[in-house]
Amino acid sequence: MKYFADINVMPMKALLDPQGKAVTGSMKNLGLSEIENVRIGKHITLEIEAETKEAASVKVDEACKKLLCNQIMEFYEFTIKEA
Amino acid sequence: MKYFADINVMPMKALLDPQGKAVTGSMKNLGLSEIENVRIGKHITLEIEAETKEAASVKVDEACKKLLCNQIMEFYEFTIKEA
Repeated sequence: MKYFADINVMPMKALLDPQGKAVTGSMKNLGLSEIENVRIGKHITLEIEAETKEAASVKVDEACKKLLCNQIMEFYEFTIKEA
Repeated sequence: MKYFADINVMPMKALLDPQGKAVTGSMKNLGLSEIENVRIGKHITLEIEAETKEAASVKVDEACKKLLCNQIMEFYEFTIKEA
């Protein structure tokens, strides 16, 4: 069966996010001073072939740990749904 | 009132996503050949001060159009929830 996974990889909350900081500053220059604390990470979508949702979840977790997420500086979360 | 916004900015479906293609290839080398069609975009979180959820939504839409998303190559979607 085919599943879709939606993965978010974000910089850890305890770490400074310079890209987000720069964008927060730019918001002020654009007249959007209500916007604060911007943080920027990656959004990854993929398709996976697996027997069950649980099996798909295990594979996606493995992909996050091995390739998509640098766990020293980032954390990840994902959702899986049937195609 | 304070709201949290979750924004996804992804490369348009019709366009090649070279970063995603490279990651799809790497999945095969890692023994995760079940994974296909990886696409990589940005995930942005921010806080916004607004009177209503609708007002927050309008501001976030403006931020996406003006700064966060290059609408020639990317599309965006977002959700807003109360802090």
